[in-house]
Order: sequence, then structure tokens, then C-alpha cells
Amino acid sequence: MAEQYTVTFQPDGVSAEVEAGATILDAANKCGVFVNSLCGGDGVCGKCRVIVLEGQVRSATTEALTLEDIQGGYALACRGRVESDLVVEVPEESRLGKDAITADHEEVGFSETSLVERYELELCPLVSKHYLELQPPSLDSNTADLERLEHALSKQTATREYQMGLKVIQRLPATLRQADWKVTATTAYRVSLTEIIDVQAGDTTGQCLGVAVDIGTTTIAAHLMDLTTSKTQGAASKYNSQIRYGSDVIRRIMYAGQSHKALRDLQDTVVTDINDLVRQLVHQAGASHEDVLVMTAAGNTTMMHLLAAIPPDWIRREPYVGVAYTPPPARAAELGIRISPRGLMYELPSVAAFVGADISAGVLATRMHQSDEPRMLIDIGTNGEVVIGNRDFLVCASTSAGPAFEGAESEAGMRASGGAIDHVTLSDAGAAPSYTTVDSAPPIGICGTGYIDLLAELLSVGLMDKMGRLRVDACDRIRTDERGVAEYVVASANGAGGSRDIVVTQEDIANLLRAKGAVYAGARVMLNGLGMTFGDLAEIMVAGAFGNYLNIDSAITIGLLPDVPLEKLRFVGNTSLLGAKLAAVSRQKYVEVEKIAGSMTYFELSTDPTFMDQFSSACFFPHTDIEEFPRVMARMQNSGKEVGR
Amino acid sequence: MAEQYTVTFQPDGVSAEVEAGATILDAANKCGVFVNSLCGGDGVCGKCRVIVLEGQVRSATTEALTLEDIQGGYALACRGRVESDLVVEVPEESRLGKDAITADHEEVGFSETSLVERYELELCPLVSKHYLELQPPSLDSNTADLERLEHALSKQTATREYQMGLKVIQRLPATLRQADWKVTATTAYRVSLTEIIDVQAGDTTGQCLGVAVDIGTTTIAAHLMDLTTSKTQGAASKYNSQIRYGSDVIRRIMYAGQSHKALRDLQDTVVTDINDLVRQLVHQAGASHEDVLVMTAAGNTTMMHLLAAIPPDWIRREPYVGVAYTPPPARAAELGIRISPRGLMYELPSVAAFVGADISAGVLATRMHQSDEPRMLIDIGTNGEVVIGNRDFLVCASTSAGPAFEGAESEAGMRASGGAIDHVTLSDAGAAPSYTTVDSAPPIGICGTGYIDLLAELLSVGLMDKMGRLRVDACDRIRTDERGVAEYVVASANGAGGSRDIVVTQEDIANLLRAKGAVYAGARVMLNGLGMTFGDLAEIMVAGAFGNYLNIDSAITIGLLPDVPLEKLRFVGNTSLLGAKLAAVSRQKYVEVEKIAGSMTYFELSTDPTFMDQFSSACFFPHTDIEEFPRVMARMQNSGKEVGR
Repeated sequence: MAEQYTVTFQPDGVSAEVEAGATILDAANKCGVFVNSLCGGDGVCGKCRVIVLEGQVRSATTEALTLEDIQGGYALACRGRVESDLVVEVPEESRLGKDAITADHEEVGFSETSLVERYELELCPLVSKHYLELQPPSLDSNTADLERLEHALSKQTATREYQMGLKVIQRLPATLRQADWKVTATTAYRVSLTEIIDVQAGDTTGQCLGVAVDIGTTTIAAHLMDLTTSKTQGAASKYNSQIRYGSDVIRRIMYAGQSHKALRDLQDTVVTDINDLVRQLVHQAGASHEDVLVMTAAGNTTMMHLLAAIPPDWIRREPYVGVAYTPPPARAAELGIRISPRGLMYELPSVAAFVGADISAGVLATRMHQSDEPRMLIDIGTNGEVVIGNRDFLVCASTSAGPAFEGAESEAGMRASGGAIDHVTLSDAGAAPSYTTVDSAPPIGICGTGYIDLLAELLSVGLMDKMGRLRVDACDRIRTDERGVAEYVVASANGAGGSRDIVVTQEDIANLLRAKGAVYAGARVMLNGLGMTFGDLAEIMVAGAFGNYLNIDSAITIGLLPDVPLEKLRFVGNTSLLGAKLAAVSRQKYVEVEKIAGSMTYFELSTDPTFMDQFSSACFFPHTDIEEFPRVMARMQNSGKEVGR
Repeated sequence: MAEQYTVTFQPDGVSAEVEAGATILDAANKCGVFVNSLCGGDGVCGKCRVIVLEGQVRSATTEALTLEDIQGGYALACRGRVESDLVVEVPEESRLGKDAITADHEEVGFSETSLVERYELELCPLVSKHYLELQPPSLDSNTADLERLEHALSKQTATREYQMGLKVIQRLPATLRQADWKVTATTAYRVSLTEIIDVQAGDTTGQCLGVAVDIGTTTIAAHLMDLTTSKTQGAASKYNSQIRYGSDVIRRIMYAGQSHKALRDLQDTVVTDINDLVRQLVHQAGASHEDVLVMTAAGNTTMMHLLAAIPPDWIRREPYVGVAYTPPPARAAELGIRISPRGLMYELPSVAAFVGADISAGVLATRMHQSDEPRMLIDIGTNGEVVIGNRDFLVCASTSAGPAFEGAESEAGMRASGGAIDHVTLSDAGAAPSYTTVDSAPPIGICGTGYIDLLAELLSVGLMDKMGRLRVDACDRIRTDERGVAEYVVASANGAGGSRDIVVTQEDIANLLRAKGAVYAGARVMLNGLGMTFGDLAEIMVAGAFGNYLNIDSAITIGLLPDVPLEKLRFVGNTSLLGAKLAAVSRQKYVEVEKIAGSMTYFELSTDPTFMDQFSSACFFPHTDIEEFPRVMARMQNSGKEVGR
């Protein structure tokens, strides 16, 4: 047996024992220290930098560390192999935050309004409770217990076709008699059947909760719903811990494909995250797990597969197909999800390999499928999905934008949690940046909205040209690193909460440029295919994690969003989550979202002959064809800062 | 820890080690020696007589053993407690036969005819297989695997609403690709949904079997069905091993009510029996358990409850209600039934606490629910159930006849297996009985049909009067035992296969008289309630385990069946099993039997004010009102042997 060593993490003060040769990341995972790792341990992303305070580490060379870093004791947790007892410091910027992401503003007052009011719905949750006072049997009325229950229930529900598990039937006679024939039956929607999932003594109709979950590649957000009112009871979110297996869906699909156990690992990981959130929500609400009877989930197709332990391998291989886009509801307990043991989990339907349930949910939530005039929905997550349509048609595409706007793959990138720079303005021609951070914490990195502001400002003050090149001599804050790569210093280490300067590099800008170019080009190609322009759209709705914080002007300035009148642009927040909530409180909405997914036409951009041209044209700030951005052009000319190519 | 002793059973030569104080019956059960025990170990029935050859036994006093018996070394296995190592002989008449009961004659040629032909059915089994050659996905056709499968399947089946377990979905992508998109989908009827229970590589539609089971209180019979043809592939039957917990349903309900474990014991016992039969059938057919995709089961309400481990307690308590008369299909594996792990088990629907699925099945099999003219179905099992009706109405009742006609509770009673006297004629005024036995084996007891013949003959030759009293001085073969109870010796020990004379006692006759009286009175009361007479019935169908062997004249002579023209009486065999077979091969028949059960009116005889009068009148041979039996009267008068009261 290999030698065992103890790795102690600071400032946490927790330790793990591992075999010689294990990585520091292994040790961190073992004792619950969450270290950032976007590349899944490939030594590429450099997000898992730790400082070895004591002991011996063997490490492969990596480009992600400079000589200075190495001299300073830095190592990558994923590459550093334990060769003695260690004491390791995990700096703030390398930590996978465990605390909740700031709840989205729109939902701050959520306990005040119900979905039923907001959407003019009939309240009919996927799982509902019915209080029944049954006539006890007599010689004149001697139907069996189950049929007696079903008969009474059929007077409250529209259906007479019931399904019921043996375990519930086996307990039924005792429950009915102990409760003096006054019971609460819990029913669940099973397409053309109704399942009686539980029968409880007495009137428990007041305890009827559901949880709606948006499973993003990066972030998982959950809302607790009171199914008796359709009001939101609480919100919680956390990072998707699957990040330790890779930052993007392709890496996770590849990991899952290694073995049955690997797929199980990914499933267990997301289920553990969900259980953490549910525990938190249930605790906050002073409720019980038993009272949470249903979970609805939306997310991209890969996330939906992994949640149900369905192999996602074929999503990433041509011709790119999933296993099930409309999976039937499953017993939550079968998946390890800790709500009521009898509760059900419903995944919202996906459309294609790269257009997931988050997009079907988005259409449902924004009601664009009921609109007379054509509308566009742009969801900017790890991919940028675009939907165009109205009551007559729905076309969708995925633009493979990558996770740049989620703060991934950038030098100082992070998610929109405490200490993330979320808004930037540059005064004094860029010499004096000012910024705000999430939770007003000392800055430790830059999130998506921060990057969008930063790019717009760098462009506006003339520190960056339309091709995204930083002007090295234009400002003291622009410098080159040892490799000769230019970078702009947003905040220096002594002003920042971390141990390093917060910078945006030339490489970061190139990534962001490609991401925004892909989204814009995708939307353009789809419009062209439909014989339409942005001007034909009644509204362009932007959804995504940063939805509420985005500076719309900045987004137009860099050409992420088209230069249409401001009133035509609307931020709609996390519509994936909202769609999941709607389905939870309304069987009709669940049916509707299935219809939406079934009727949406998938537009394959990768095989469209015009896409590459459009993409190249969009890889400028704001666009090669400046005529497409008349207001940006006018503003630049007015400010006299328009920069030639 | 208590002292351990070894109990060896002869002539088997097997041993079991038990603690001091355990019963001989415990030891026998432990090593698989099946000793008869009708009373469930209460020391009442006297069926478990064994001979202690060596060793010490402590025994409570019991009326079931005479002084002579005790001096001869006899003990009751259920009462004799082990106090030393023992050698015990289990005589033939105390053994619970393990060999199959002779298959019923009607089904001997069963492989020749299909149910589809016989009933002019559309073949549409509850579970069916569909071979599908799917188009592989392409960029132009990129629906997901599941939706691709469902689309192809919907062209073969009438439905588009599918349900599918996660486990099958998880395996789906590998199966489809390994099979080059040529697969067999197995679908199961789930009321308004179709469940895809399995997807197999290649074309396996040829392997599609089902098993139909009739679970009687005494006997379990199973037929293996080829679901692709609706032909019967094999038949097997055995005793219901639950007998060790009591001979009748009331005793078993009481046992089940003791604890959750007791209920599980009863369930395990019947499932073990079923698994034995399935193993035997599958082996005979050269098939695999995997190929048996469905099981249908009929039986009385208590048997249906116990099979599904549903507590039957309230069946025996006023107002006599079951838990579920129409339980939904269950995964067979969940119940421990060893067919395909994905296979389903469907119980046919029961009607009331004492009118079970065997009766619904009987109506389905006899098609009386489609008849223009009113018909009657009498099912003589442990209870005697009676149904009257036609296409317009169906009325049913249970007569609590008891198990007398199944050979239980009689001195020499046994089931219709090898060595059972099944037909008797008495010549020379009763001095010279002649008889036949099942399998022509040496006689060891008397089964139901034997008793019916015997009573009719005793009556005809004048050895028994109309009240059922034996005439002690009329014949040498009638003697009295030490208690002064008269008995007629059918076969003496030296001519018989057992160790004792085979006799019918005055007490046996009283039991049989009550049983036949209950059935006849029940039928009469129901007819009266409907304003009808036996003469109004187009047909009287007799079902039951002995159906095919019954001497109809004898049954009329003793007044078990009414004295109607012979062409109006028909033996229909085991219609419970036949109904279960029909449901297995036809979803339409499964729906039909649910409708039958739902529409049947239950007639409660125990609260009918006229029942006791009718019962008293029927407790004569053939009846108090001899006018009701004109042909019997005429025959008796002709033979000059009519005996006054």
C-alpha cells in the first residue's frame, strides 16, 4: 500500500489523508474544500492555484504558472502531487464559492405576487393534495378501500383513471381507519393518468411544496414554491459542483463516457448540489422535506441527461442527438433527490442536443409562443441560444458561444458572486477606472457584466480598437506580461481582495469577442433564413444569469445586442427557472412546454453556409458593417473617439 | 441457548436440527417435508398425524387422537414438542402431496387450439413485442433516441402516450447502437398509457410468453401461454403451501393479521409456489424466465390480497371489505415473482370480500355477461360462489360452503391427487363398494367427487336417510367408533394404500350436508330475490377444481345441483384460470373483466331474512321439499328405496 500523507488546508484548518501521488485537488475534494477547476484537472485553466506553505509537491510543468508564481510557492492543485505531509493555502480567487449567489432582483419581492396572478393561470400543480372525508364502509356500502378513495377523489379531480404504487395500497387500510376515514390524498400528473402517490391521515393540504431548479453548467438555482398559492417561498443557488469534472458540457460528456461509474459520479454530484439547496430552502421556510412533493428541472440537454443518469455521449458526436428530450417523470428518490420519498421529479423537455429544457422553459416563461408579432429570445449562458418566433412558428439555434460571459476561461473571470466586479466605467481616458462589485466586497475578479462594461468602455475611450486590440502605449494601465501579451489593469493587488492584480488580457478580449460574435451572427443567420431583420422583431428578450445586471448600452456598444430602439430590448432574467416554476404550479403549463418543445424547429448553424461569413463579420466591435449599429456609430463620432481599423 | 435436537423424517431420510420445545411440524417445514395441516397448527384438524419411532415428545392433549393412536406412537406434528433426538415417520395420508394434480381433461389437447380461435378474439396481449427497424439519426433527422423509438412504435400500436422507466432509458442508447437500430420493444398495457418495459437488440418477438395463474385456497394452477399465438404451452399445478398457515381464508387472514412479518410469510409462501410452477413450465417448454413477460392471476379476494401483500384483515370483519378489488398492475419482481425482471403482474378484479377475481374471471370465460338469456354459474371451491345474469344484469353471492367438497375437514378427505377415491358405486345394498382412484393408485383418501358419489349411493341403497343419518344396523360396513359416532368403511386398511381404514363418518356427512345446503340455498335465495326459478335459467354452469370429474347425477341426487333437465347443466372446468388466460392474451378482455367486476351486484346472503329458512330446507338429501327434485323422487320411488323421514 502506498504511503499516506496528511494535507491540511488553510485558512480552513481542515485536513485529508491521501496516498502519495494523489493530487492536492483530490485531497481538497476529500475534505470538502472547494477549489476552482474549470478544465476538469487538465492543468490548463490555471484556476486552481494554491500556495504550498509546508511540504513537498511534485508537479508537471504548466503554462498556467509563471516562474515568479512557482518561486512564490504557487502550485496548481490539479497537477501538484503529494509527496509528504502538506500545509496548503487556498487563496480567495481559487475558491469555488459555496455561498449563495445574490438572489435575482426581480424575485426579491417574490412572496408578494403569485404566478397564478402574474400569468392568469388556473392553479393546478403537477402534484396536488386533496382532503377527503370518506363515508366509512357499511353492509350497504361495501366497496373496497381503494375504490372508495378513488370515488371520493374523482369528485375533486377531473379524472377517474388512477395509478397507485403497491406500497401505498399496502398501507392504505391502516391509514384510513387510524384517520377515521378523513385523509389527504396526494395526486401527481402522469400524462393521461393520475397517480395517487400518497395518502396521509387528516388534513395536510396546507403542506404542499414544490421546488423548481435551473441546472446551469455553471450555476444551479432553486426556488421553493408554495403549491397552494403558487407563491415563491425562497430562493437559493450555488455553483454546479460538476465543474470539478470540467467547465463545459463537452468535457463533462467526455468524462461521463469513461465508465458507468463516471456517469454516476456526475449524477451524484448534481444531486448532492440539489439536495444542498433543498435542505437550505426547507430550513429557511421552516418546512419539512416530506412536504416537498415535486421537483421540476430545466437546463441544457446535457444537464438534463446527467441529472437522470442518462448517458450523454451522443450529444457531442455527429449527428448530435440526445437519448430522451421528453423523459417521463421519475420518482425523485430513485435519483437520490431528497424531497418526499413519494415525490416526483419532472424534467422539462429539451428540443435538440444543444437546445435544452432551459430554452423550452424560456419560451414558456416569456410567452413568445402566444405572441402575435415575432419576438426573439437570447439566452446567454455557457452557450448562447437564440429563439425566434410567435404563435405561428418557433425557430431555435445554439451558437456555441462558450462560457466567456459566465466569467470562465478569462484571467480574472469569475461568476457574479461576492467580490466580482460587475460594473465598470473608465474616466480620464482609462487612467481612472471605477467599478462596483457584487455585495460591495473587495474586488477579487470580473464577472460577465463587468467584462461587457469594460469592453464597451475600453472601446469608447479609445484604449481598444474595433478588432479588440489593446493600445499598448495609450495608457499606463496597459502593460505586457513576460510573454508579451498585453493586459489592462482594472484593479491592482493592493486595492483588491485577492493576491494578484485584476486584469483583462488580450486573450480574454479575443475570447469575449468570439463569444459575442457567435451570438450575434447566429441571430443574424436565423433572421436571414426567415427573410427577416432585427427591425421586424417586436421585441428582443435577453435571458441569462446576468440578465438583471447587464448594462444594455454596453451590450449594444460591443455588438453583443443589435442596435435597435431601447424599448424593444427587455431583460427577462432566469427564464429557465421561471419556466420550471410555471410547470410546477400548472399541469396546463407542463403540457404547453411539451408542445413548445415539440413544435420548435431546430436550425443547425454549423452546417449553414453563411454562418462563417456572418461570424467573421461579427468578430469586430461592434461589427464590420458599422451601418448595422447607427447609434453606436453616431455616439463614437460625437465623442470624437471613433477609431479607424 | 436452548438445547438442539435432530429430528429425522422417514421414509424421506432427511433431518432438521431444532431447539428443544419446537414442534415436529417446525422441524418438518425446516427440511422440506410437507406435512398436512389444515388448521394452521391449532391441533384441531388432526391431519398432521405422524408416528414417533424413536425419542421423546411432549404433547398437549387433543381430541384428534384416540388412546389407541397414542399407544400406537401417533402424535400430531403441530402439537408434539421435541424433547430429544427423534425419528418420525410421516404416513402417506398425512403428507401434503407435492406432485402435480392431474391436468384437467379439457386442456389435454390445449396446444392444438388457440384462445383467439376459440373466443374469436383479436390477439392483443397485455404485454406484447414489436420489432422495429429504426432510421439511424442524421443531421437532417436528429430526434432523440427515445422519441425516435416512440415514433416508430406508434406506427405499430394505436397509442402515442408512452411511459418508460429510467433504467430502460439509461440503457437505450447503447442497445440501439449495438443493435444497429434494429430492436424489439416490449410494451405493456397500463390503462390509458402504454409502458415500454424493455428494449432488446434484434428481433426477439418470437419469445413472448405469459403465465396465467389460478390461486385457489387449496390448489394453485398455472398455464404457460404463447402470447404470439394465444396457445397454451403447458400446465402445472400444486397445493397452495399457505395451507400450513390454515386451511381456509379466515384462518389465513387471522394469521396475516398477527404482524407485518406474518403477512410477508403468507405472501412469500404463495410466491414461492408460483415460482415453482413457473420454473417447471419454463423448463418443460425449453424456454427462459426472461421470455415470460406477464403474469395474470385470479383467485378469491383473500388470495389476491395476500399475493400483493395487501393486508386482508378487514375482509373477515363486518362490514367485510377488501382494500383493493381492482389493484393496478405491479412489477412482478417487486413481488418476488420470478419472470422477466421487467415483467408485469396483473390481478384480475374482485367484486366483494367473498366474491373474488375467480368469479369475475369465470363470468368472462363463460361469456354469461354476453348472453341474451339468464344463466347461472356455480363455482364450488372452498366457498361456493353463485352468479346469475346475462347481458343486462349480473348478481353474485358467496355461500360460505366451506372446504368440504375440497376434501378438507373430513376424516379421510383429500384433494383430487393420486390415490384419491374419485368415484364410488355401492352394490349389494352397500356391502360391496367399488371405486376408482386418481391415477389408479392404491386408495389413500376420498376427494370431493368421491364424497358426492358416496352420499348419493348411500342414499340410493338406503344406508343413509334424508337427514344424512347412517343406519347403523343396516350393513356390516357401518360401525361406530369408541365415541359412538357411526362411520361407513369405504376401503379397509389392508386393501388401502394408507395405514387406516378409509371411512366416511357421520360428522363428515353433516359437514357435506351443510356445504351442499349452503350452495343450493344461496342459489335459491338469489333466484327468489330476482323473481326467478331454476326453470327460468337457460343454463347452469358448474365450475371448480372437480368440474370435469363430477358425476352430475350424484350431484343432483344429493341436492347439490337442482333437478333440471340434464342438457341445461354444463361443467365448465377451471374458469378462473381460463379467465386469467383470456386477459393475458387480450387487453380487450382485461378491460371487459374490469367492467364485469364493476357492474356485478353483490347479494349479501348473511343478512337476507329468508336465507336461514332456505338453508334449513336444503339441509336434507336431496331437499325438504322433495317436489323440487321430481326426477330424484321418481327414481327413489321406482327403486323402492325411498326412505321416510
